[in-house]
Order: sequence, then structure tokens, then C-alpha cells
Amino acid sequence: MKKSLGAKTIVYPTPVFVVATYDSAGKPNLMTASWGGICCSTPPCVAVAIRKVTYSYSNITERKAFTINIPSETYVKEADYFGLVSGKEADKFAVTGLTPVKSDLVDAPYIGEFPFVLECKVRHIIEIGLHTQFIGEIMDIKAEESMLNEKGALEIEKVKPFLFAPESRAYYKVGDYLGKAFSLGKEI
Amino acid sequence: MKKSLGAKTIVYPTPVFVVATYDSAGKPNLMTASWGGICCSTPPCVAVAIRKVTYSYSNITERKAFTINIPSETYVKEADYFGLVSGKEADKFAVTGLTPVKSDLVDAPYIGEFPFVLECKVRHIIEIGLHTQFIGEIMDIKAEESMLNEKGALEIEKVKPFLFAPESRAYYKVGDYLGKAFSLGKEI
Repeated sequence: MKKSLGAKTIVYPTPVFVVATYDSAGKPNLMTASWGGICCSTPPCVAVAIRKVTYSYSNITERKAFTINIPSETYVKEADYFGLVSGKEADKFAVTGLTPVKSDLVDAPYIGEFPFVLECKVRHIIEIGLHTQFIGEIMDIKAEESMLNEKGALEIEKVKPFLFAPESRAYYKVGDYLGKAFSLGKEI
Repeated sequence: MKKSLGAKTIVYPTPVFVVATYDSAGKPNLMTASWGGICCSTPPCVAVAIRKVTYSYSNITERKAFTINIPSETYVKEADYFGLVSGKEADKFAVTGLTPVKSDLVDAPYIGEFPFVLECKVRHIIEIGLHTQFIGEIMDIKAEESMLNEKGALEIEKVKPFLFAPESRAYYKVGDYLGKAFSLGKEI
């Protein structure tokens, strides 16, 4: 028997995306967004939802580009900070000492130190309500070589990403391997 | 120095959503979708992307409703199975012995046994490419009482959800508590 909790925004796991953009003067900015996820395989696309009042919203609508930077556990304080302060008030790259690297594919910077990044061109803008959803086509993923396995593929156990739990507003590590997808279900 | 991996669909963490729908005859169906996430706080909305060839696609476009059911580790085999087989060929509720419960708010069923579910009405349909994105307004969340803490809030450590790692196509548990969101960043 289930109990009603009301109309809330809770799913598990929720990601921690650090979105990087340029403003009109070319100053790089960062913000953390947890409302998002992959939304299409072909063309490869990712969605991220952002409020209109943010500095990043203006940057994305103007530049039609952004990058999504996936933080490792090591950068949990920085990722949290990027969600607390507006780019109108602070140079978040300077404050944290992280390096803005100009993307060679899209009109946005990415974080040099983070394990991997998605370089995106805006394809759709959907006005939903408090949040506007930007759907970006993923032009490339760039990753640190130390995050790849012997086959050259990204390895989640090396990246050590973390997740956000809405409502309890807490971060959790990724835990143990549970099993092989598109395989375990064959035992049913 | 980062290495180019090409245009791929990898973010960490990626969720495991079990989407439940009714077909035109009222038969309940289930499918697993990992392309999705919360996309707006007000109104509370969640996005899920589904291929046109699926049985669930037809169900959602017809009924304009779906539920998202969050599995616990206990149901990893079932969740994987729902992504392997089409509802055209199998009655997935019957095969797994799970119970379809009719939602009192939207024209869709939910899984009685899963820790919590989001009941959604379709608000936007966005044709992206191979996948179509459905944005649903979350009308209610219903949860097992055993998944709530003493304040009546959902507790991720009780739910024990898991996540999907694209490309390596593996499931991982949620790990240890890492820290408090909207707080850790104040130390920067």
C-alpha cells in the first residue's frame, strides 16, 4: 500500500552536471544543474533544464552552445559551489582555480581538470515553466586518458562520479557493481 | 590534456526508469528507459525519451499518461528484463509476477511492489531523432511507507536504487553518503 507524497521532483539517481558557457564578453561561467539527462541516441543529445534568472540561461540562448562537465568525488565542493553563487557576482573559474579550455567544436569552454566533458550545440529550447529545457546535440566527448580502460572506453570506476538526492539534498558516491545490463534480465 | 571519444551518449549517473502504460485495450505494459530525468521544478515535470518502434510509445501517445517506477536493487533482473522484451510479445507484469495498480490520477498503471512511483500526464512531446521525448507533469509521487524516514520523506538509503553506466552497459549500486548539497560549497 503506497502513501501519497504530493507532486514533487524526486528521482534516483539524479545527476550533477556542471554546465560551462561564455557570456557576451567572452567570460567563461559555470553552474551546477541536476535537472537533465541523455534524451536521444541518434543524433546523440543531452537535455539540461535551467531557470531564466540564471547567468547561464542568457549565455546559452546567446551562444547556442554549452558543455556538460561531469565532476568526480574530488570536486564535490566545487560542484556544490557552482550552484550556490551566480556568475553575475563571481568569476567561478578564478575562485576555484579551475582552468577554462576553449572547445574546438562549440562556442563554450570546458573544465580542464574534470574527468570528462560533453560539447553541445543547442538544437531545441523548450519552455516548460520555471525551467527552460535546452536540448544539445553532443558533438564530442573529451576525457582524460587516465579515465579510460585498456579498450579506450570511459570507466565509471575510474571517473568516480557522484549523484544528487533531491529533497534530502545530499550527494552520494557511486557504489559497487551490481550486474550486466541487457543480460541479467535473460534469467527471468 | 583530453582525448576525443567521439559523439557518444555517456553521462554518469544515468537513471533506470521503468515506464508503465496501458495499451488501447487496457493491457498494462512496462519498459525500461535510461534516457530521462527531472526537467522542471514548477510545474514539477520529468522527461523520458522513447523510440517510436516501442509498444510504450504508442501507449503514451494514445493515453497521454505514464508512470515512472523507480526500482530497488532487489528488482535489477526485472528492470533489465523490461528493456529486453517488447510488450507486443509478452505480458511483462504476468511474466515477472509484479502487480499493476491503476493510478487514481492518470490513465496509467504503476508497479505495486516498487519503492516509489511518479504519476505523470503528458505536457510536451518533442521529436528529437531516433528518440521522442515525453515531458510529463508529475501529478503525485506514491511511495511505500517503509521507504520513508521519521519525517515522512523519501530516504535514498532505504530505497536502494541503482544506476546505469552507458557504453560499459552495467548497473551500479548507490554508494556512501558524500556530503550535504547547497552547503559543502560554502567552504570554497
